[in-house]
Amino acid sequence: MSEELGVNIDRLFESVAKKGHVCVGLDTCIDYLPPLEREKAAENPAQAVLAFNKALIDATFDVCACFKVQIAYYEEMGLAGLKAYSETLKYIRSKNCLVIADIKRGDIADTAQRYAKAHFSGEFEADFVTLSPYMGMDSIQPWLAEAKTSGKGAFVLLRTSNKGMRDFQYLQVSDKKLYNIVGEKMSSLAKENKGKNGYGQFGVVVGCTEKDEAAEIRKIYPELFFLIPGYGAQGGGAKDVAILLRDKNGGVVNASRSIITAWKNNDKELNNVKIDNLFASNAARCATINMRDEIFNEVTGM
Amino acid sequence: MSEELGVNIDRLFESVAKKGHVCVGLDTCIDYLPPLEREKAAENPAQAVLAFNKALIDATFDVCACFKVQIAYYEEMGLAGLKAYSETLKYIRSKNCLVIADIKRGDIADTAQRYAKAHFSGEFEADFVTLSPYMGMDSIQPWLAEAKTSGKGAFVLLRTSNKGMRDFQYLQVSDKKLYNIVGEKMSSLAKENKGKNGYGQFGVVVGCTEKDEAAEIRKIYPELFFLIPGYGAQGGGAKDVAILLRDKNGGVVNASRSIITAWKNNDKELNNVKIDNLFASNAARCATINMRDEIFNEVTGM
Repeated sequence: MSEELGVNIDRLFESVAKKGHVCVGLDTCIDYLPPLEREKAAENPAQAVLAFNKALIDATFDVCACFKVQIAYYEEMGLAGLKAYSETLKYIRSKNCLVIADIKRGDIADTAQRYAKAHFSGEFEADFVTLSPYMGMDSIQPWLAEAKTSGKGAFVLLRTSNKGMRDFQYLQVSDKKLYNIVGEKMSSLAKENKGKNGYGQFGVVVGCTEKDEAAEIRKIYPELFFLIPGYGAQGGGAKDVAILLRDKNGGVVNASRSIITAWKNNDKELNNVKIDNLFASNAARCATINMRDEIFNEVTGM
Repeated sequence: MSEELGVNIDRLFESVAKKGHVCVGLDTCIDYLPPLEREKAAENPAQAVLAFNKALIDATFDVCACFKVQIAYYEEMGLAGLKAYSETLKYIRSKNCLVIADIKRGDIADTAQRYAKAHFSGEFEADFVTLSPYMGMDSIQPWLAEAKTSGKGAFVLLRTSNKGMRDFQYLQVSDKKLYNIVGEKMSSLAKENKGKNGYGQFGVVVGCTEKDEAAEIRKIYPELFFLIPGYGAQGGGAKDVAILLRDKNGGVVNASRSIITAWKNNDKELNNVKIDNLFASNAARCATINMRDEIFNEVTGM
């Protein structure tokens, strides 16, 4: 890794310090588009999704830490969808903002290396990816090898925010839970690959839906940066998030639907006016600022 | 699920009975193409990969149970690569052959449903997919819901074939290993969704690189169909595979490089002749038949 370039985890740390903790999740599908844009979308849904994303990025990039793009929503639209995915990543990066590709890949050796090339360079280039650890650390290491010169980052699933996390992640392995074994290995990796702000180049995903072990998780992994899902619709609040942060930093909090469909809150009042991208992106900006301030107030004890 | 349509797991069972156990893995990249085709590929690598795949499919579809396409190899080539991926799946299905999309997805709720739509229909339609269980059973069930009417199938990672599998899959959870907890849950699911040959609509991935628990794994999950990696290059042989089969069926054995780069075995002898797709696909056919017969002889004790 070039000292000049720095690692993306440092850029993310600085972005949080400057713009707050919100990670805007662009899990965009046609149903989330405002009525006027949905009408226009009939012929080219992927194009309409891209236009909506661009409006949202323009409206939020100065008040969020980063963006996260969930590739499933684009894959569902086939090749045209993946073109919109590629263009969305490019647009975010053209604004000098950071983007997490939510792809949850997990495969070994050669395959992992190919995935890493696919998502750390070329048409699908992102700044960070999400990874799934089930296959073992040899499914994580090829990504780190590929990221050595570029400073790219990753978030490995540790404790997620869904009900099913209890099926495997919570299983008791002698005196620890499975997710803590993942955490230990990620922690060792982080100690060998630290950015200048003290966080490992690769972090972990820790949901904020369970308050129970949150303080412990934060305490035992001071060198891991957290990508935090579960805020809002899934039940997590600013208080839950604050427990997972460290010195007002150390994590970004994802919100998707509550931001990108914030326009729906006004849908009934504006019965006779068809809502467009400009209106929707303004609503998204307000929702982002509200969320940023909620978390900030909790963290600073205001 | 419509009785008329049947489930893909039954089609796979019948394909194994008729054509043997080989699953031809189309993990195709430019480096695996024979010299003559590689020269032509400079301008349009994805197109060259597709042409190579078509030649291989033509040469092997009557001597293999199914194909498996590893999406990472195509993602690496960007949008053009994913077009070649889509065309490869279509070509296999146009021959009335079965194809497993090796995508190892694992995500929850809405996201899983969108992935399922993406890979069980539309431009990326496959007959089976591979899934990763770390996030829990609510990352598997949406796929099954989506497969109810179509009879589509999936293979969930249980015990893989890489060294790193010991990092998490082998962890001891009271008197069981983690992979057996995954197995138990998949087994329950299979009992509720059986095809007419007694196998669950969704099976599991069990590598053949470790002989140790193979007999036990086969014995405790009679209703689970296995997708078996690890043959050849990774160290598994026909004897190891035989232990994982049941009544000469119940599993398909993946081989990628040993088949698609079988032409390399003749590369030196044919020093002055540039090898083309026709030669390479004939070599692939021979390698497939040899592997099929090796396994068949082991299974039948010949």
